[in-house]
Amino acid sequence: MKRIELVKVAIGKIPCDILIKGGKLVNVHTHEIYPVDVAIKEDRIAYVGDAEHLVGPETKIIDAESKYLVPGLIETHFHEYETQLAVEEFAKVFLERGTTTLPVSFYGMGIVRGTQAIKFFYDRLKNTSLRTYFLVPTLTYLQNRDLGLPRSPYTPEDEDFLAMLDWEGCIGIEEPPFLPLVKEDPVIIKLYERALEERKVIIGHACELTGRELNAYIAAGTSSDHEAVSVEEAIERARLGLKISIREGSGMPNLKELVKAITYNKIDSRAFNFCNDVASPFKLYQEGNIDDAVRKAIQLGVNPITAVQMASLNSAQVLGLGMDLGSIVPGKYADIILVNDLESFVIDQVIVGGNKVVENGNYIGPKLNIEYPSFLYNTVELSHLVQPSEISISVPGDRKYVKVRCIDSPEDSIITPEIHVKLPVSNGYVKSDTSNDILKIIMVNRYKEKQDTGIGFVRGFNLKEGAIATTYNPNQENIIAVGASDEDICFAINHIADIGGGLVVVKNKKVLSELQLPVLGLLSDQPLSKVLEDFKAIKLSIHSLGCKYKEPFHKLAFIGACGEIGILKITPYGLFNVHLGKIVSTVINKEK
Amino acid sequence: MKRIELVKVAIGKIPCDILIKGGKLVNVHTHEIYPVDVAIKEDRIAYVGDAEHLVGPETKIIDAESKYLVPGLIETHFHEYETQLAVEEFAKVFLERGTTTLPVSFYGMGIVRGTQAIKFFYDRLKNTSLRTYFLVPTLTYLQNRDLGLPRSPYTPEDEDFLAMLDWEGCIGIEEPPFLPLVKEDPVIIKLYERALEERKVIIGHACELTGRELNAYIAAGTSSDHEAVSVEEAIERARLGLKISIREGSGMPNLKELVKAITYNKIDSRAFNFCNDVASPFKLYQEGNIDDAVRKAIQLGVNPITAVQMASLNSAQVLGLGMDLGSIVPGKYADIILVNDLESFVIDQVIVGGNKVVENGNYIGPKLNIEYPSFLYNTVELSHLVQPSEISISVPGDRKYVKVRCIDSPEDSIITPEIHVKLPVSNGYVKSDTSNDILKIIMVNRYKEKQDTGIGFVRGFNLKEGAIATTYNPNQENIIAVGASDEDICFAINHIADIGGGLVVVKNKKVLSELQLPVLGLLSDQPLSKVLEDFKAIKLSIHSLGCKYKEPFHKLAFIGACGEIGILKITPYGLFNVHLGKIVSTVINKEK
Repeated sequence: MKRIELVKVAIGKIPCDILIKGGKLVNVHTHEIYPVDVAIKEDRIAYVGDAEHLVGPETKIIDAESKYLVPGLIETHFHEYETQLAVEEFAKVFLERGTTTLPVSFYGMGIVRGTQAIKFFYDRLKNTSLRTYFLVPTLTYLQNRDLGLPRSPYTPEDEDFLAMLDWEGCIGIEEPPFLPLVKEDPVIIKLYERALEERKVIIGHACELTGRELNAYIAAGTSSDHEAVSVEEAIERARLGLKISIREGSGMPNLKELVKAITYNKIDSRAFNFCNDVASPFKLYQEGNIDDAVRKAIQLGVNPITAVQMASLNSAQVLGLGMDLGSIVPGKYADIILVNDLESFVIDQVIVGGNKVVENGNYIGPKLNIEYPSFLYNTVELSHLVQPSEISISVPGDRKYVKVRCIDSPEDSIITPEIHVKLPVSNGYVKSDTSNDILKIIMVNRYKEKQDTGIGFVRGFNLKEGAIATTYNPNQENIIAVGASDEDICFAINHIADIGGGLVVVKNKKVLSELQLPVLGLLSDQPLSKVLEDFKAIKLSIHSLGCKYKEPFHKLAFIGACGEIGILKITPYGLFNVHLGKIVSTVINKEK
Repeated sequence: MKRIELVKVAIGKIPCDILIKGGKLVNVHTHEIYPVDVAIKEDRIAYVGDAEHLVGPETKIIDAESKYLVPGLIETHFHEYETQLAVEEFAKVFLERGTTTLPVSFYGMGIVRGTQAIKFFYDRLKNTSLRTYFLVPTLTYLQNRDLGLPRSPYTPEDEDFLAMLDWEGCIGIEEPPFLPLVKEDPVIIKLYERALEERKVIIGHACELTGRELNAYIAAGTSSDHEAVSVEEAIERARLGLKISIREGSGMPNLKELVKAITYNKIDSRAFNFCNDVASPFKLYQEGNIDDAVRKAIQLGVNPITAVQMASLNSAQVLGLGMDLGSIVPGKYADIILVNDLESFVIDQVIVGGNKVVENGNYIGPKLNIEYPSFLYNTVELSHLVQPSEISISVPGDRKYVKVRCIDSPEDSIITPEIHVKLPVSNGYVKSDTSNDILKIIMVNRYKEKQDTGIGFVRGFNLKEGAIATTYNPNQENIIAVGASDEDICFAINHIADIGGGLVVVKNKKVLSELQLPVLGLLSDQPLSKVLEDFKAIKLSIHSLGCKYKEPFHKLAFIGACGEIGILKITPYGLFNVHLGKIVSTVINKEK
């Protein structure tokens, strides 16, 4: 639309298309609340004030009497594919929660089927009412390479990867890790340089960085970060100019700790915004995403207008989109949510680009098709079925016990320490120890050209019988499985391959429950209701096997090696110690 | 410089070039003050913290013990040519006052000698240590056209004008007026559209706009404004998302009123920054510019850290330069000022891009040449000397008195109302009335192709004898003169033409004092000290003639018609009523 049309509406030359009447504006520029009308022409706001005179015979009126008008909420960092929802179903649940803008990279799709899949899903998500911007998926390109391991056969070539920066709607780079800078990686340096030249943003990933390294990561041009987990980390980062995306995701609830920077340490709230990073469909559906963060921040003592600022104006600036988004003022996109009160912050209506897409909290926008083309199916390709003999560890001689490296997986962190435990040996093979919760964990490469199988041990899942497996893990979207019995582990892996990807819970070579993710092994092609139902059944059956994790599959996913997240992780090539930067043997001092 | 060099410094791989040691950082991100070292590599900051370990044998140490480290101050709107200083002298005085960044358009130079002159001065100013960005000089293009009057023969063609948007270092547009949008001017619409597409800023000029018109101006994409003069205006604009540049210029002291929005109305200070717009060399030298605004804001109750935020971080964001400027953090330009205390805010040292250019408040940077090439001289071209007969107004018949339109010029405003006064007629000619301070005001077109001469009357100068004239006026840099005697007015005008432009005070056909501005009739080619000396003499001699204005030539300048500034103004074609949008007769009902 031409801006001059907005001018014509504002001066009363032509009527507005939509008038939102009588709402209380949460003004994020001045930090005030007062009543206004908002006049909209096509997809932008033309006038804010007393706008009665702009009504024509065709003008639609939205009654906002007694409602608060809040700018559409903005996510600053989120991997939509980790919700396992078809992107259309994902957009609906996001919109119902008042989030109207999302930057995305589709990096999981890129690992599984390359640039073609990224483009496909970007187009599909843009086709929904969710305002979608693109970020270069650094992790599609780097995943496993930064660990010195083989990459997906679908990894884009250097120049194709760099060229993504110029895709339409690309606003920057998604979480480039730090180490490639230290190693002076020419492609990553070029990516940074080009992005800065084009004044694009660099959404960082400063996991565990502090002091010199943090300074270096910021000096390179990194503009924001979502990995602060303590208030001290958040303050150190904010002081160095990094914008802090307070993360409140599944298995990553950092908000309670980080808002102390504002409420207790009195750090300027301009430095902060909200993100979810990773969220299960349950989290999205039951708790929400950015709305949930706003609500929690208010409960923890953040001023309600400040909380809204953080979720809108601050976020828009973090994404370099302040000219178009983040407040309800003339010229910006008409992305507006109506809430009944700021404390409960329940989303009543959502308007995106002048179109009402949510009414009474329910999606009422265009019907969205969740059928997908065949090239996205059958992408989990084992060269042969996995046999128990392949996941056995033999030890020479007649030893009764061996010491093994074991991944320790605490409930509240994705950082998984290396512990050393003693395991029994029977008939020359190392056994799991279910009584002490030391279980076998397996990762199988899903690309049939080279089917590698890594074997390790893990503590924390507490399965007393059966096994679980999934293609949902950010390593390379490989198959990861954990279980009490080798037979069930193999059965679960082979079943996952058979259904083309998903989540499965197995006992005695029978499927107890499953969520099929046939689209690239990453996404369901079913409605949200069906996904939630399957998820519920899965949780129940996992818990029946003894596991106590709140989100077992999210825990399992991040035991796969993934960038610079420490410490001991599983890969198709065996255990990997991230701090050492190399594959380590599962059995310690095997030869002795 | 490559960012990777900063990374190497930060992680301690190579030493820094400069270490600022032991200063107290004013952190504009977190709103805190605490001690740090700052390590610099080439022109950017590599590390902030305890940086002892980054010192190498070649590292220069700057001792900042007991000083505050403040980000280089940023002007958001300023016409540097209106200081009448050679740009090199101007840069020095700006730097000595702690301002390190300036966006410029050189619109006066453009009116006098077109695109060539703009380019010349942009290159010259960039060659100083002042960090210089370019803005498209909308007023070079529009001056007089928006009033329906002839433009300068040097006005750039439409496409040359639009192409300025792509000049290197161009960050946006400088003060496009509102009316061309209402008139749907295709060139101005194109300028807005292209700027928004390239995500550039639109530094607005919302003089007297409110309600519908203000909404329209903002909806078009205007991002900031410096024309608010009351706190109510400032709040209305801030609420609509416009960034408010609080102006504290010569004859435009708006700060005391506007900071009430922060101190009294508690509007979020994020909405505000500082500018000078227009400042005499005296103002710059004696009071300062942005440092003066910071100091005054603190005195008026603004928190000192907030005042610094407004002058740095906020300003950088207004200019779309937040990635490079506005705070002392890794990756940004090393533009840092050292002050002894925040309340007096006296600038001690100034570092720009890692180079110290001010020490003990004095410029110590590279020696700057203020010689200019010949095409910039002799640009005031009268076709013939102006004679008293040309500036007489005859009335038919034998009337003793006539009623005339008179410009009323109050001390504290550039808005000049139309008043009607009775003047005596002698021998068929209308006489001035010095006893009631009704003086003749003349504007002569300086382009010899068509020497038009406009005649009017003005109240406020209070000259009892003599005359003053100047080429300094933003109408078209024409010659403007006011005086008690027609002979002296003509003498002053002809003298100004003779010296190629400047400021002159005349009595009894003798020059009492003058400031020569031979460069385009706009700038001196002498050092600041000589300009100040001449200025002082001029003030004394004007006051000796009876004039009481603080800045008489700044008052005179803005009586020339200039864009949408109301109300009654002088042009070479006679009096112009801006609200009516047309030339009006000086004598009312002449025929009766």
